[in-house]
Amino acid sequence: MKPATSPQAPAPLRYEDAGVDYDLIDPLKVKAQRAAKATSVQLGVHGFSEVAASRGESAYVVDVGPFYLASIVECLGSKALVADEMKTLTGRSFYAAIAQDTIAMAVNDLITVGATPLVVQAYWAAGGSDWFADAERAQALVEGWKRACETCGVAWGGGETPALAGIVEAGRIDLAASCTGLVNPKSRLSVGDKLAPGDAIVLLASSGIHANGLSLARKLVERLPQGWLTEIEPGLGYGEALLAATTLYSPVTEALWKAGIAPRYCANITGHGWRKLLRHPAELSYRIHTLPPVPPVLRFIAEHAGHDAREAYSTLNMGAGFALFVAADEAERTVQVARAQGVDAWVAGRVEAGAKQLQIEPIDVRFSDDDLQLR
Amino acid sequence: MKPATSPQAPAPLRYEDAGVDYDLIDPLKVKAQRAAKATSVQLGVHGFSEVAASRGESAYVVDVGPFYLASIVECLGSKALVADEMKTLTGRSFYAAIAQDTIAMAVNDLITVGATPLVVQAYWAAGGSDWFADAERAQALVEGWKRACETCGVAWGGGETPALAGIVEAGRIDLAASCTGLVNPKSRLSVGDKLAPGDAIVLLASSGIHANGLSLARKLVERLPQGWLTEIEPGLGYGEALLAATTLYSPVTEALWKAGIAPRYCANITGHGWRKLLRHPAELSYRIHTLPPVPPVLRFIAEHAGHDAREAYSTLNMGAGFALFVAADEAERTVQVARAQGVDAWVAGRVEAGAKQLQIEPIDVRFSDDDLQLR
Repeated sequence: MKPATSPQAPAPLRYEDAGVDYDLIDPLKVKAQRAAKATSVQLGVHGFSEVAASRGESAYVVDVGPFYLASIVECLGSKALVADEMKTLTGRSFYAAIAQDTIAMAVNDLITVGATPLVVQAYWAAGGSDWFADAERAQALVEGWKRACETCGVAWGGGETPALAGIVEAGRIDLAASCTGLVNPKSRLSVGDKLAPGDAIVLLASSGIHANGLSLARKLVERLPQGWLTEIEPGLGYGEALLAATTLYSPVTEALWKAGIAPRYCANITGHGWRKLLRHPAELSYRIHTLPPVPPVLRFIAEHAGHDAREAYSTLNMGAGFALFVAADEAERTVQVARAQGVDAWVAGRVEAGAKQLQIEPIDVRFSDDDLQLR
Repeated sequence: MKPATSPQAPAPLRYEDAGVDYDLIDPLKVKAQRAAKATSVQLGVHGFSEVAASRGESAYVVDVGPFYLASIVECLGSKALVADEMKTLTGRSFYAAIAQDTIAMAVNDLITVGATPLVVQAYWAAGGSDWFADAERAQALVEGWKRACETCGVAWGGGETPALAGIVEAGRIDLAASCTGLVNPKSRLSVGDKLAPGDAIVLLASSGIHANGLSLARKLVERLPQGWLTEIEPGLGYGEALLAATTLYSPVTEALWKAGIAPRYCANITGHGWRKLLRHPAELSYRIHTLPPVPPVLRFIAEHAGHDAREAYSTLNMGAGFALFVAADEAERTVQVARAQGVDAWVAGRVEAGAKQLQIEPIDVRFSDDDLQLR
């Protein structure tokens, strides 16, 4: 695989260069996951038990009898920094979109296990009390949060708004959301035990970068003479394009259930890009024959960061924000149900027997299990 | 009320001086709470409904049929900064205690509504990937987290370990926890509808400052010639005393239920100190006749910050980390059950008819509704 840069081009900008080194974080993650697993027995004290297959999945699932309980906490990441830059440059507040991004991070993870999200809690940790004194920004955050809850059919339960000077940087905010839901009826559970060769892979369109790859996107802006205001297509600036709100996928998964379709597995395509399609622990191959269109902002990033196709698809969502693994004979209807919810979708590939790998045929890229070591 | 300072003493150090100004945060909180309340109707889409009385309480409760679902997200606050200072001074890692503190913030809130905590999710947002490279510290955090989960009988479901350079300060970590549980059977619900004149107030001992008032405690250290190592009693330094892990109260509430005692209301005594005893929305008076002993570190802070009794009790827990409001004839047994769990307890006062106020008789301090405007 040759890098798509000429000798005159600047050195490629890798995700690691942007300050996020998964090699440092992942060992801690693995340690924490092992310790967490050891606490599962605690549920027995209360007469409950965990759904062991949810360990390592995007949401944790407990069998509480009449249904399964699913929960998650998720972080926005560094996207709010882009909103802050754009506020300075344009005077506009993008915090309504930022609110939706934050909820999407939690909700889109929770639904992977087949759960209906019910309650979202807000975690808004500011660098000081004065963050909350900007009434317009605070109002945008509140209103965007409320609207995203309404889109997902969840109740906003409450939350926490600490002022953390000395931990969170002055003028900044650390945004996260927790989400709790139920898998109800229990037959909706999709932790992958039913995934099998022959299943179809349906990809749901992303709205842009969503909330993963922002460290790279922010690093890249240093290379752009016009910075955040660089036009990536006529009338659309780089910063504004980055700030397109993350698509909320729970309306699709709820509509699928109403249409009688229960996905066998789901993957929220976030950090690690398309490598997330390898998330399921089984030895299975995934062959992609159809690519969704790449949002202009992602095409722009890949090009200006000097990424080849392999690097781009291993870092960014490249137009696919969520993957549904469904029975082959339900694939077309899955696409229709998603489109009826306003989310574009494609039957993009299939599950096959064979060594664990992802083959993206149209661009001749292959990822193996070694490319995603999270368990 | 006269300040307990002489003319020669330095000016009293108020909580506001320590950088946390609730007057700036509380209006946003109120706006957010109103918007959140408007989303309650979303639960109807799924055939569920909220327990409206849980709005404004420490945990949010949803009626899902066979039982109530309770959820919460909570932040540690700035206590980790003290651990970082003490590491520099002593070489010891206090992150196992910090982990317990973080879980306590979530669990101790969740149990106020009568819920059994079942699942905790970890939110560990570091200032950079390198935070996780200190294996000893990371290990302490993991082990302390696991142990606290075991104490509370909860499963550690998973969590999020983002590296947030530019949002979280370099070398720091923003710690939070979400917690999900069930009120099961539903008769355990304690959102205060049963609270009535004549009920007893049982206070549970705190282990020290817990995780509220740390901004003040950190500001105070600037006034101490020996800083964090100042002895507050022979052999016990200020920093070390501050880092006593927060008491986990769920073993007490679970034991109470097994003993047939269902508290009519609970208050987790955190920010705003004893003003939290006024949390219940009803017009009721609370008369305290017995004070728990004040932990040396809190006595030290109040004295050196120049706080009179009113200010100290309105900011710090002053020895009471949790309040149980129980039927008068169950008060003594409540104390016994708590002590059997290793948590000291006292029948400290009673609920009375009358204007909403808290009278702390032994120190002649009175707080009214105006002193706690959070709804």
